[in-house]
Amino acid sequence: MLIIGEKLNSAIPRVQEAVQSRDAAFIQDLARRQAAAGAHYLDLNTSMGNEIENMEWLVGTVQQAVDTPLCIDTTDPSVMARALKMLRGAGMINSISLEKNRWDGMLPLVLDYGFPVIALTSDDNGIPKTAQDRLRLADMIINTLFAKNYDLDKLYIDPLVLPVAVDSSNAVIFFRCLREIKETYKVKTVSGLSNVSHSMPARKIINRHFLTLCLACGMDAAIMDPLDNQLMTALIAGDLLMGNDRYGRNYIKAHRAGQLAD
Amino acid sequence: MLIIGEKLNSAIPRVQEAVQSRDAAFIQDLARRQAAAGAHYLDLNTSMGNEIENMEWLVGTVQQAVDTPLCIDTTDPSVMARALKMLRGAGMINSISLEKNRWDGMLPLVLDYGFPVIALTSDDNGIPKTAQDRLRLADMIINTLFAKNYDLDKLYIDPLVLPVAVDSSNAVIFFRCLREIKETYKVKTVSGLSNVSHSMPARKIINRHFLTLCLACGMDAAIMDPLDNQLMTALIAGDLLMGNDRYGRNYIKAHRAGQLAD
Repeated sequence: MLIIGEKLNSAIPRVQEAVQSRDAAFIQDLARRQAAAGAHYLDLNTSMGNEIENMEWLVGTVQQAVDTPLCIDTTDPSVMARALKMLRGAGMINSISLEKNRWDGMLPLVLDYGFPVIALTSDDNGIPKTAQDRLRLADMIINTLFAKNYDLDKLYIDPLVLPVAVDSSNAVIFFRCLREIKETYKVKTVSGLSNVSHSMPARKIINRHFLTLCLACGMDAAIMDPLDNQLMTALIAGDLLMGNDRYGRNYIKAHRAGQLAD
Repeated sequence: MLIIGEKLNSAIPRVQEAVQSRDAAFIQDLARRQAAAGAHYLDLNTSMGNEIENMEWLVGTVQQAVDTPLCIDTTDPSVMARALKMLRGAGMINSISLEKNRWDGMLPLVLDYGFPVIALTSDDNGIPKTAQDRLRLADMIINTLFAKNYDLDKLYIDPLVLPVAVDSSNAVIFFRCLREIKETYKVKTVSGLSNVSHSMPARKIINRHFLTLCLACGMDAAIMDPLDNQLMTALIAGDLLMGNDRYGRNYIKAHRAGQLAD
């Protein structure tokens, strides 16, 4: 499972404060700790302030600290363009979707850079309620990118989980999307873990079991907190049970290193 | 999910000691606590000592303490017969399998009492390695019981998970069995949770995530420890995510009662 570290996000008040005050030490520490904990990409999001200036500073600051590739998280194509230009190596685009302005603005960047991209199954009408309608949007995304010669191995579809507090079938609808996208198109899937538990108490517990259930549906990547021991334990145990950890070597190693949360 | 409380098992040294010394207070406390924690059945197993006498004592002792129905857990048809005769109300038979002696001995009891029964996909050759071969045994069990007019709604097939330490695909094979038995026959499925983690360290973590993954495969019952808070939390969170907890009422109630383990 590809781990996209979610901590460098201005929606987290302490991070927003550090970005605003240009507290490089705090940011770089958070970058280093996520990388050390196993993040394959670090997500950067500055949507809470002066987005473009803050993104420039954040990309520069993080690149001074770690070599981990960055996942640029913005809905604004001009912010995306500026950030991608600054990247030293490979990056990830988070995200494109079928909202017309976003699609038109992001598509040239996706094709120019050829980086992995997260694509959301939403359009100008929002997020479709049913699995069937989300699969229809996934189909449009996949066919368009294929026609433009984008390497579909680098595509990560996010079928957008809605909160179970709103409708108790929302997670099940999402699991169906994960399975069917995989079976029908063989493209990769991704999700954040927190939306599913919106408006519920003890959200971390729900998010953790959601990750295990997503693993069972063959999900390839998660935007998650690699510093959350319980979450990383769910990932390691889930990988073992899904047959992805031969002889349990990784599980045993994590146990010996005291990394498993009981 | 039907919870079959597993604690009254003579494989647990403290329980065996209490059975041997006829320590009714200890046994009855364990029975009451499992019932209070949400067990729908209490499994009774006395295979470690003088099985038939110990089972008689155990059934009597437990029935003095709780009204929770009992799940008689023995491979010996004569022990099963004696225990079933003592039951005040409904019970469960754990278990029948296609080993010839066991099948011939248990089948009359299954048909006489009409109680729910756990049926294992094994025969005189042991537990088949592949999902396909276990499904073949499930097919034989289902067809035979159907032909004898047994109510298949009361049948719980256990496709017998083997340890992931032996072969990393063992859990995945088991998940496939759960799904296919459900899809093909619409009969219920059940499992114990501990076999999967045999020879591994930190087994409780593996068992807990195994339960969540079994839930995702539509498993109907588990032989488990209802006094393990983490396990019960996995069940409550899993039910929420699988759409079985409308408006999250049960999850919220458990949270308010301080029953969720973080």
